[in-house]
Amino acid sequence: MAERLALEKIYEPVQADLNTVEDWLKSVARVSYLPQANMLERSLHDGGKRIRPALVLLAGNLYHYNLDTLLPMATAVELLHTATLVHDDAIDKSAVRRGRPTINATWNDDKAILLGDYLFATAEEYTARTGNVRVIRLCAETLQIITTGELNQAFNAYNLKQTYQDYLQRIAAKTASLLTTTTEAGAILSEAPEESIRALKEYGYNIGIAFQIVDDILDFVGTEAELGKPVASDLSQGTLTLPSMFIMERYPGDNPVRRLFENPALKEEIPRAIDMVKNSSIMDDCYKVASQYRDKANGVLHGLPKAVSRESLGNLADYVVQRRK
Amino acid sequence: MAERLALEKIYEPVQADLNTVEDWLKSVARVSYLPQANMLERSLHDGGKRIRPALVLLAGNLYHYNLDTLLPMATAVELLHTATLVHDDAIDKSAVRRGRPTINATWNDDKAILLGDYLFATAEEYTARTGNVRVIRLCAETLQIITTGELNQAFNAYNLKQTYQDYLQRIAAKTASLLTTTTEAGAILSEAPEESIRALKEYGYNIGIAFQIVDDILDFVGTEAELGKPVASDLSQGTLTLPSMFIMERYPGDNPVRRLFENPALKEEIPRAIDMVKNSSIMDDCYKVASQYRDKANGVLHGLPKAVSRESLGNLADYVVQRRK
Repeated sequence: MAERLALEKIYEPVQADLNTVEDWLKSVARVSYLPQANMLERSLHDGGKRIRPALVLLAGNLYHYNLDTLLPMATAVELLHTATLVHDDAIDKSAVRRGRPTINATWNDDKAILLGDYLFATAEEYTARTGNVRVIRLCAETLQIITTGELNQAFNAYNLKQTYQDYLQRIAAKTASLLTTTTEAGAILSEAPEESIRALKEYGYNIGIAFQIVDDILDFVGTEAELGKPVASDLSQGTLTLPSMFIMERYPGDNPVRRLFENPALKEEIPRAIDMVKNSSIMDDCYKVASQYRDKANGVLHGLPKAVSRESLGNLADYVVQRRK
Repeated sequence: MAERLALEKIYEPVQADLNTVEDWLKSVARVSYLPQANMLERSLHDGGKRIRPALVLLAGNLYHYNLDTLLPMATAVELLHTATLVHDDAIDKSAVRRGRPTINATWNDDKAILLGDYLFATAEEYTARTGNVRVIRLCAETLQIITTGELNQAFNAYNLKQTYQDYLQRIAAKTASLLTTTTEAGAILSEAPEESIRALKEYGYNIGIAFQIVDDILDFVGTEAELGKPVASDLSQGTLTLPSMFIMERYPGDNPVRRLFENPALKEEIPRAIDMVKNSSIMDDCYKVASQYRDKANGVLHGLPKAVSRESLGNLADYVVQRRK
């Protein structure tokens, strides 16, 4: 509740337009084929934080705030994000997302694949409504980067020989790339000078890395009620994230992560790994890394026009690190 | 071999440019991440007929043949088609395609989902290279239509209560829509008059319906060597196609299709259904329907510029019905 209030305050300069995005997302679900409409309604349900559309609008609001192009773009990035979640859940066999059954759990994997494809197509269609070929191409390239990151993750499941650089590269691809694109596209569509486009792109990248690191921390230290999904889903999938890497680094000989990755059947190692992160300096150390990226994000904002939306972008960077879900 | 020669003759007016498309498809597979490069190479292997790129180029060749936009478009439609095949194979658990192991069989379903997504993104990127927002939007809408058709098929697996209209609507969505888009986009990019764009769109739709009906016939009467995949894959998936519909219509009380759909474990009904199609007028009757669509496709060509590419389009319509694979 406190988090929702914090976000409402941050989103205030663009809240009315975010409501329009929400209406547009609802309209995407109103298709004539009823089984498809039900699936779309579930996947686009407004339990999400809508950070990506907010970033498009807040970035755009610093310059020529043209809703004719910013609203389709803001809608498109949420659709693109939702499509990747639908496919991720099918791949991970996840049963719950945002406290509700996933598409694959309610229907099946096959229908989840097809619904995700439909959402990708709809994202492209909304991107095309901007009429701006530069952002259309940017979105296509972003999806290439995201899926390359996801493929990399799939090929490296249960692989203990991954460096911090590998991790950074992977989260840059699978998460930060889309957040980078939200602020970059917002800036392009509102005709920001190239220098400001670069700055907003850098802001998006850094907030994106911070966001994913915190996601990876919360996967260890959050509760199922907070997360809206089971804890330790990364460990369950054999995905090595920053907290696991710190465990590996500090206890190189033997540790729960090593034991689990060498024998994925040893599920009892998962709560041991969680305890190890909670009851050591590892959690704090992970937050320190996330905070460095938050600071970098905040750092580039100084060069941008002094406006209430700039303040929101700064507060959003803080929120990303402080959030519990 | 004879078929390949027939296609070579048809493709002749645009063969040099089709070779460029082939090179571009090969370049798509040259990514730095090796496991991904291997998957891309497999999925884009040149065993395909490349009908879709040929249609873009042949349609474009009737007007202002601008390779700067037609080549990216021709490449994009093949990428889009390949992406849908990769996902279809994962959904259908198919082991073989074009005589080679599928992506899902060699890697797994999860990686096939991600590779398909990457190919969708790459298709979008190539479409964006045309710089033409109208065709970008057209491609996005086409993918929406295709996935809606596929979803419809998934929801209607083993459903015997489907009409000929349902079938037609489904194959229009899952197959004809992309063929319609190839000729429509070719015409748009080569600045054809709106009336000719409409005619080429109609040609594409009709050749697309004929193509899918023949695919559905060959799934019964072809051989695994010809098809490059197992026969009767539709029946195995519970997909009702035109030959099965004719069986249901002629033997409404009891027949192998009904028995199979009511109890999918009765695999012995599959060869019985195949025999029934082969040893009756059903095969001919299906070909008659396909030929009607071929004739409609040929019919609209008269209004287009008299050129060697127009002849090729006519011959391609004939080929689509005559082919054995």
